[in-house]
Order: sequence, then C-alpha cells, then structure tokens
Amino acid sequence: KALVKTEEKGLQCLCISTHSKFIPPKAIQNVRLNQRGPRCKNVEIIAMLKGGQQLCLDPTAPWVRLTVKAIFAR
Amino acid sequence: KALVKTEEKGLQCLCISTHSKFIPPKAIQNVRLNQRGPRCKNVEIIAMLKGGQQLCLDPTAPWVRLTVKAIFAR
Repeated sequence: KALVKTEEKGLQCLCISTHSKFIPPKAIQNVRLNQRGPRCKNVEIIAMLKGGQQLCLDPTAPWVRLTVKAIFAR
Repeated sequence: KALVKTEEKGLQCLCISTHSKFIPPKAIQNVRLNQRGPRCKNVEIIAMLKGGQQLCLDPTAPWVRLTVKAIFAR
C-alpha cells in the first residue's frame, strides 16, 4: 500500500492504511516516525525502501519495533 | 548543530556532528532513522522539531533511544 497523502477534509494523516507484512531491514533505506499531533492523531511510521518506494508500517506490529531497534543496532 | 548536507568528496552523510542535549519528545515533530549503507557508513538519526529545525541526534545516547520508544508509545 503505497503512501497516499490525503488533503481532503483537512485530514493531514499521511497513511491511509499500513503494510503489515514483514520487510527485511536491509531492504529499508530509512524509517520516519511521525509523532501524533494536531495534524494527525495517529503515530505514523513511514519506511523508504531502497528502491525509493514509501510504505506506511503498522506501529503496533512487533516486527516494526524490532526493525527500528535493528537500525539502531547495525 | 543544525543539519548540514555535505556533498564534497562524495561524502553522503547528512550529519557532521550530533546534538547530545536532551530534547523533550513533545518538541519533536518526527524522527528519521537512516540506515548505514553505501551512501554513509553511519546510522543517522535526524529529528525535525516542531519549529521546523532539523537536528542530528547521537544514535548511542540513551535518551535518543527512549525518545524513539516514547514516540511509539504515545
């Protein structure tokens, strides 16, 4: 599910849905963690893959947290 | 230490130095974790503050890891 920016009705969340299947850390170039805030009430985790594709990841999925930890540890 | 992009000598790391002083999570809009790779041999943690300023954070500083965890937990 590619990243789709939604402008209508002032909805400023970047993620419509999230990708739940595991992505190996070495396929990921960077991960952006957007805090919840006035713009969007959800925490949003957006991975940029090495091919340049951006995917929204599920912040509650255990593998997403492990992936973030793995990036720190590498 | 603001974020300075370095182009000379093919150095593609974004961070020249890192900000070590604690930044409260609520001052942070998002955090980007750049994996080490061919472009740059360091893991780079770049925080975008609510004012729009970008700061490189020290990946080894405990408070940085706690801040990332806090973003997930909020």
